[in-house]
Amino acid sequence: MVGADIEGLIKFFSKMPGLGPRSARRFVLYLLKHKQQKLLPLIDLLAHTAEHVSECTECGNLDTENPCTICSNQRRNKAHLCVVEHVADLWALERSGAFQGIYHVLGGTLSALDGIGPDELRIPYLKQRIQSNQTTELTLALNVTLEGQTTNHYLAAELASPGLKITSIAHGVPLGGELDYLDSGTLITALAARRTLETEES
Amino acid sequence: MVGADIEGLIKFFSKMPGLGPRSARRFVLYLLKHKQQKLLPLIDLLAHTAEHVSECTECGNLDTENPCTICSNQRRNKAHLCVVEHVADLWALERSGAFQGIYHVLGGTLSALDGIGPDELRIPYLKQRIQSNQTTELTLALNVTLEGQTTNHYLAAELASPGLKITSIAHGVPLGGELDYLDSGTLITALAARRTLETEES
Ligand SMILES: [Zn+2]
Ligand SMILES: [Zn+2]
Repeated sequence: MVGADIEGLIKFFSKMPGLGPRSARRFVLYLLKHKQQKLLPLIDLLAHTAEHVSECTECGNLDTENPCTICSNQRRNKAHLCVVEHVADLWALERSGAFQGIYHVLGGTLSALDGIGPDELRIPYLKQRIQSNQTTELTLALNVTLEGQTTNHYLAAELASPGLKITSIAHGVPLGGELDYLDSGTLITALAARRTLETEES
Repeated sequence: MVGADIEGLIKFFSKMPGLGPRSARRFVLYLLKHKQQKLLPLIDLLAHTAEHVSECTECGNLDTENPCTICSNQRRNKAHLCVVEHVADLWALERSGAFQGIYHVLGGTLSALDGIGPDELRIPYLKQRIQSNQTTELTLALNVTLEGQTTNHYLAAELASPGLKITSIAHGVPLGGELDYLDSGTLITALAARRTLETEES
């Protein structure tokens, strides 16, 4: 039996997404062996982050600043709004470096079965932002799943208005694929090939 | 650009052994999304561990108690001492559940090239412990590498004395294999098949 505290840490990390028991053990042992250079700085960084992290009240991103680093960046194009399901998708698009606008995190997809309607998905606030930001292009970057595409079509129909170009990132990704799992190259291509959706107004 | 603090956390975790950028991102996002249930308890556990962790002055294990959980366990057989290279090896043997004695962590292997002699490896203290614990069996569980086996032979020759049975875990493991990478089953077999080394005294 390894000590209870250390066993607790290993168990904690073992259950995290992307980690297993082996990674967790190696990771914990590494931290314990490098207390000054690794473990203590990590605790400081985690504590600082925990104290300041919040959902950006504008876009829904998670950050230690509010509005988040992206929303408060003057060089981002506020008139180009990209809609994603989850924060992980926003991060994936940011890694691609291909998008210079701002984001709107829905928090999921519409699902009649699960009782998730527009009000559960920050869609009312999306409408507000389109108006207040004077959005000229709305790019839908939902996952290529049945629910994602249903939501895509709902948004395209619901938000259509004169002067608003609604685009969707290209389907360069396999069906069932989720943005968070894609390499940046695929995302760059998909963004570059985005197309205007046919709406009643267009 | 994701926020600087969060980017810092992701970078930190990306560099840890057993983790990569994808695991790190998923892990950080998971922590941020579960601040109360995951992130804050993790910070507490890490801080408590950092405050109390030390090398066991007896065996060299890392624990938040000193002597460690193993050395202070009255049910362990203090007369059976198992020598390992690293704390990770001790943990691997503990996972197998096959060893009921106590340990001695050398901290590495003898290496003339790297200037690592007996005094760098807690070998003098190993001799002391054998005397004070009245050790009756010394099991050498060094890695099956050239350095490990060289150290094995050195220890067998150096520590040989009447009344001390010196055993070595069986070579049921591939050459070049390291204990930390083995499954518990292999370790159980290797321990059960340990053999007495031929020494001058025997
Ligand atoms: Zn934001
Ligand atoms: Zn100990």
